[in-house]
Amino acid sequence: MELTAGHVWTLVAAGLVFFMTPGLALFYGGMTRAKGVLNMMMMSFISIAIVAVVWVLWGASMSSGDAILGGLVADPTASFGLHGLIGSEDLLGSAFGITFAIITVALISGAIADRTKFGSWVVFTLVWITAVYFPLSFMVWGGGLWSEGGALAEMFGEPIDFAGGLVVHINAGVAALVLILLIGARKGFGKDSGQRPHNLPLVMLGAAILWFGWFGFNVGAAATAEQAALIWTNTLVAPAAAMLTWLLTEKIRDGHATSLGAASGVVAGLVAITPACANVSPLGAIALAAVPVCCPRSPWV
Amino acid sequence: MELTAGHVWTLVAAGLVFFMTPGLALFYGGMTRAKGVLNMMMMSFISIAIVAVVWVLWGASMSSGDAILGGLVADPTASFGLHGLIGSEDLLGSAFGITFAIITVALISGAIADRTKFGSWVVFTLVWITAVYFPLSFMVWGGGLWSEGGALAEMFGEPIDFAGGLVVHINAGVAALVLILLIGARKGFGKDSGQRPHNLPLVMLGAAILWFGWFGFNVGAAATAEQAALIWTNTLVAPAAAMLTWLLTEKIRDGHATSLGAASGVVAGLVAITPACANVSPLGAIALAAVPVCCPRSPWV
Amino acid sequence: MELTAGHVWTLVAAGLVFFMTPGLALFYGGMTRAKGVLNMMMMSFISIAIVAVVWVLWGASMSSGDAILGGLVADPTASFGLHGLIGSEDLLGSAFGITFAIITVALISGAIADRTKFGSWVVFTLVWITAVYFPLSFMVWGGGLWSEGGALAEMFGEPIDFAGGLVVHINAGVAALVLILLIGARKGFGKDSGQRPHNLPLVMLGAAILWFGWFGFNVGAAATAEQAALIWTNTLVAPAAAMLTWLLTEKIRDGHATSLGAASGVVAGLVAITPACANVSPLGAIALAAVPVCCPRSPWV
Repeated sequence: MELTAGHVWTLVAAGLVFFMTPGLALFYGGMTRAKGVLNMMMMSFISIAIVAVVWVLWGASMSSGDAILGGLVADPTASFGLHGLIGSEDLLGSAFGITFAIITVALISGAIADRTKFGSWVVFTLVWITAVYFPLSFMVWGGGLWSEGGALAEMFGEPIDFAGGLVVHINAGVAALVLILLIGARKGFGKDSGQRPHNLPLVMLGAAILWFGWFGFNVGAAATAEQAALIWTNTLVAPAAAMLTWLLTEKIRDGHATSLGAASGVVAGLVAITPACANVSPLGAIALAAVPVCCPRSPWV
Repeated sequence: MELTAGHVWTLVAAGLVFFMTPGLALFYGGMTRAKGVLNMMMMSFISIAIVAVVWVLWGASMSSGDAILGGLVADPTASFGLHGLIGSEDLLGSAFGITFAIITVALISGAIADRTKFGSWVVFTLVWITAVYFPLSFMVWGGGLWSEGGALAEMFGEPIDFAGGLVVHINAGVAALVLILLIGARKGFGKDSGQRPHNLPLVMLGAAILWFGWFGFNVGAAATAEQAALIWTNTLVAPAAAMLTWLLTEKIRDGHATSLGAASGVVAGLVAITPACANVSPLGAIALAAVPVCCPRSPWV
Repeated sequence: MELTAGHVWTLVAAGLVFFMTPGLALFYGGMTRAKGVLNMMMMSFISIAIVAVVWVLWGASMSSGDAILGGLVADPTASFGLHGLIGSEDLLGSAFGITFAIITVALISGAIADRTKFGSWVVFTLVWITAVYFPLSFMVWGGGLWSEGGALAEMFGEPIDFAGGLVVHINAGVAALVLILLIGARKGFGKDSGQRPHNLPLVMLGAAILWFGWFGFNVGAAATAEQAALIWTNTLVAPAAAMLTWLLTEKIRDGHATSLGAASGVVAGLVAITPACANVSPLGAIALAAVPVCCPRSPWV
């Protein structure tokens, strides 16, 4: 069928979310030591490559479709090569979906900076996206266990998770925490001044690209013009407020605010507003983002 | 209501104009000495944070609505927290409006590079956006003194200012000039070779992001497809012509053209075409942009 | 007429393709030695300036309209200053068309890195865009010799070239090859370690911007939502597969994969999928991109 406004917005939003992962590569890459920047950036880039190919082979199938294992995941063989989607409008939703899967894996990589072999990361990406991300995505968004009518939804209620606080951010955060507990801290962490971010303009550019792309991430699924406008506004003002709070906290605690604090505040504010972006007012968004980040703990400041 | 093509274009344009301010941070940041780059970039980033929050609190109210003070500004208490806009399509126009307010303040920061404390800039941003930008924006675009039917419009005619030559560029330029007169030149300006731009690829990337975002800035308010196409074309060819003229002038005057000249020409051309972008032909755009920049004065070349 | 979804998508796509050329400037610029980066970047930037102005003067006329010289090119004087397009929707197609002409010339510049005077490049750009690009573009896309009904199309069939494999990539590739044969290799090429790319994060950022913009390049002309979704998906998975293949080949051949390989794989995959993007399935896209890049030859790895 002819392109509608909704289709065009999905195409744009998918492009914006795609662009977030290279933005993340810069954000993380600038924070490492100089000698680690390429390794760090490559962890994001390879996430794009692996997840995109896996999505075509079995990821799209696992993320939506006929439930197996009691609603834990969808049948991974149902749409090999996206064959059931080609020629259908649903392929557009699939395109948007891939970009979410990609950024979620890439988000984890920041937790294990400077102490992971590239080959291990490749294996982790492949296993985690298959065993954790696709099932959770199906459970919450794809009609599975935690969607309307599912057993978990009956017990705990459906999660209010408009744009991925649970599937993307909590999910990536838990994975990151587990990896940190397994791998431990960097050598010399907290004392070695050689651990400082080597390129803060790169960090700021990365944060800016993330923010730019996040308008696609949060607003991409908006159903109406009024909702789109509200989400867009919240996606601007929440990180803005979080940046202010972070800088103020640094100023009070350390006597000076930093650009790393500004960039960290932006990303913290973006994560904070994501699940609630369609359900709070702009004043609510400011409060939501400003309060949790008023006690930042950053090793470099 | 369902998303229309016009809504989608406003969402896209707002995103593009948002992206301009980080672009400006790179453009200005690359031009400073190495030790000033973070301070310079932070002046743009903090503009985003302050203006976004202020917009929600009183800026949106001041920019459109019921006139007070004889049409000088709108009632700042009318829509605290955007409460009158939530659930309305007008919130989309508000989103687009914030991004203009942000970039206008940020533009000023280039004039006071390397010699302003961050705290002073924060205070300036807060005061200037409230006392100067919102009133002028109301006067020209919001139904105030200089809009159709207003006293200034009766006396001088309505300004032909499609995309913000007056409210954004002349306004920021005047503020910059006043600040320069108050603060004076940088120490060693014009003789000290340590004043050279420390990172020209950053300047070029910044100029490119500004140009990319400017398609949203100028075309965002287009009413028809034909007008959108004309403005888009002018927004491409005017900076193109200005870049050529600037490079040619450098070549003739100094014997060699520079990348700083190319980037400066682009931005000069973008500023030149902005107010007229909907009212000239592409040939007019070329002439408009090429002529004024044929006598550039840049301290580094 | 009022903006339709199709118009908005063309506006967005034209912006995205525009952004590719600065992306290319970073991609090529990061690969040169440090002292060559500005010269390299300027070759892309000046392409934007020259081609945009030339398009308005005679390029648009040469690319579509009444055939002359037996269908080799269209009459270059037909629409001076775009006068026949102003006020028409066709000006939107013209806007999209300029961005293709710009990136095609800029692509060539990588082949002659570090050994071309800026002035010579300016002359080459002017001559080549006029004598080669506009005629070929007319022949294939504008109704000329190789379009439906044209003599070459009768003899060889119409080319299946959805998004510019022939007009853009083969065309630029042939020009690059000819220039290399004329100019020869760089001094010390292949032995001098001083020839290594000086800034790989810049290369990766450039590749990412190219990829982001390529969604506009390939999907910009999609006729339906289903086709747009297919092309979008192929534009994601083909470079993804090519990145994997390139890295794997490096790993097997040299014992380690490189970030330059990842970035090169992405661009190779994008070029590979372009002409076929609307005519293959995602599995086909993976095969198409993965196979040809499994034997990369890069002097730096």
